[in-house]
Amino acid sequence: MSKYAFGIDVGGTSVKLGLLTIEGQIVEKWEIPTDVEDGGKNVLPDIAKSVNDKITEKGIDRNDIAGAGIGLPGPVDGNGVINKAVNLHWDRKFNVADDLSKLLGGLLVKAGNDANVAALGEVWQGAGKGYKDMVMVTLGTGVGGGVIHDGKIITGAFGAGGEIGHLVIKPDESIHCNCGNCGCLEQYASATGIVRLLKEELGSSDDDSILRDSELSAKNMWEAVKQGDALAIRVAEKFGYYLGWGLSIIAGVLNPEVFVLGGGVSRSGDVILPYIEKNFKKYVFHGCSEAKIERATLGNDAGLIGAAKMVID
Amino acid sequence: MSKYAFGIDVGGTSVKLGLLTIEGQIVEKWEIPTDVEDGGKNVLPDIAKSVNDKITEKGIDRNDIAGAGIGLPGPVDGNGVINKAVNLHWDRKFNVADDLSKLLGGLLVKAGNDANVAALGEVWQGAGKGYKDMVMVTLGTGVGGGVIHDGKIITGAFGAGGEIGHLVIKPDESIHCNCGNCGCLEQYASATGIVRLLKEELGSSDDDSILRDSELSAKNMWEAVKQGDALAIRVAEKFGYYLGWGLSIIAGVLNPEVFVLGGGVSRSGDVILPYIEKNFKKYVFHGCSEAKIERATLGNDAGLIGAAKMVID
Repeated sequence: MSKYAFGIDVGGTSVKLGLLTIEGQIVEKWEIPTDVEDGGKNVLPDIAKSVNDKITEKGIDRNDIAGAGIGLPGPVDGNGVINKAVNLHWDRKFNVADDLSKLLGGLLVKAGNDANVAALGEVWQGAGKGYKDMVMVTLGTGVGGGVIHDGKIITGAFGAGGEIGHLVIKPDESIHCNCGNCGCLEQYASATGIVRLLKEELGSSDDDSILRDSELSAKNMWEAVKQGDALAIRVAEKFGYYLGWGLSIIAGVLNPEVFVLGGGVSRSGDVILPYIEKNFKKYVFHGCSEAKIERATLGNDAGLIGAAKMVID
Repeated sequence: MSKYAFGIDVGGTSVKLGLLTIEGQIVEKWEIPTDVEDGGKNVLPDIAKSVNDKITEKGIDRNDIAGAGIGLPGPVDGNGVINKAVNLHWDRKFNVADDLSKLLGGLLVKAGNDANVAALGEVWQGAGKGYKDMVMVTLGTGVGGGVIHDGKIITGAFGAGGEIGHLVIKPDESIHCNCGNCGCLEQYASATGIVRLLKEELGSSDDDSILRDSELSAKNMWEAVKQGDALAIRVAEKFGYYLGWGLSIIAGVLNPEVFVLGGGVSRSGDVILPYIEKNFKKYVFHGCSEAKIERATLGNDAGLIGAAKMVID
């Protein structure tokens, strides 16, 4: 029986790596820079070198390693095939799992989308622990998502399952999202979206607000809400309306036990929850209303923990 | 190895039963009335008697029967527990699968929600054949739904997976849906919803329409669309907007290979598809846009075929 697994979480700037026990404890974690030069051709070799070096450094028997899981910023299908990753400068479709496995001397490798993999981490060791049907929503610069059904990721037919940030939630929106559509959930529920809503609110009213003299960030917006700033609370209401309503639709489709909210916005604390819950309860179908809404607990480690889980039964 | 399975589709007026081969061919199908007197206490005994009689009549060896699957008009969890069924006058929570199994001399019984079970039928033998990830949407008096992932029903944590008819798609609607909320998809995409949209359109314009002299039904509305009736086409556009947009949201969550549309409205023919597809393409996230939209092919047999499939591996 294997004792260890590697978890790898690839971002556009750095790659987070972890050596974990198969019970889910992090033995060691470290980072390497992401080299996106030359179409990102060094990304996988750099990762493989780092993993192979760690195996040597720790004197680990390769037979004790279950494998390596890797989370990537792009759509990855159930076989480990990625179809482009803009942030890594990858502009082709290829099997990441197969390629990395070869570089790791035949070690079992599984690949997944980074948001899906983070969801798997949270359901294994984080806020979703003990649940089987969970939807994770990552509220960062954008909004990502991952759907866990019966303990496993729903990858989707073309690797785009859980693309919750790009649900069009306001079809009459005229401002474009990065994806090309208008009215995507991430235009209202991401950190960027919150700042946009805040600017609109500041521009359309003359009301006093402590935010008029501070840097406009989602973090400061929630701090102002904690201090009872009326203008900030109006922004929080809008955020909560779109996200709570959006979650109610997801609940009607999947009827999950729990939603787990991650990403930078979630770290502003429990202050965000009532605004979401109020609207969720208002719009959700009664048969799906028992779903809990929790904040993620693994922070930046969710990705590498979930990646490792992919190769652990 | 078993040769046969029973499929049972329970409605508020009649119960459809089928004896199927385990390859999915219907050997015989028949109906019995649904006796909802006395809190519907006779529903399961009547079904059991009909199945037991059929086994005797056909001289089938019980060892050749894989089991009996039953679809029910209410939320059924993964263990076969139903939590009330208004149309059957069942007002309590109990394990239908266990109770029916006892009445059938210990035969394996599995129970599911009727819309979910119909989806399983279509993915096994109907329009979804060959696909693993499918969402079925039943456009009847109401709108039902069933989500198939990796060939299996997503029941949901509380038996309410696939409650697509009650996704709130127009949060500013003031007219109530039967479920108590306002703005549910079924208020615009069901046969009833189409008639409502049609009445609104007739009332708010003086335009000529062949529908002014005909019975107001979804069927007649689509016939008028086929004849190029401008007012009917406006109603079709509204129907297509809500349903196409709604499907785009479901696609973003699940990334299915195919949507299968069933129920009475789907039987008006391919005329309904362009109105839905146009809006689906407009609002769907590009990574999820390859999902096909097809019409169901099994008609009223989907339920009993899918019910039988529940007990066949």
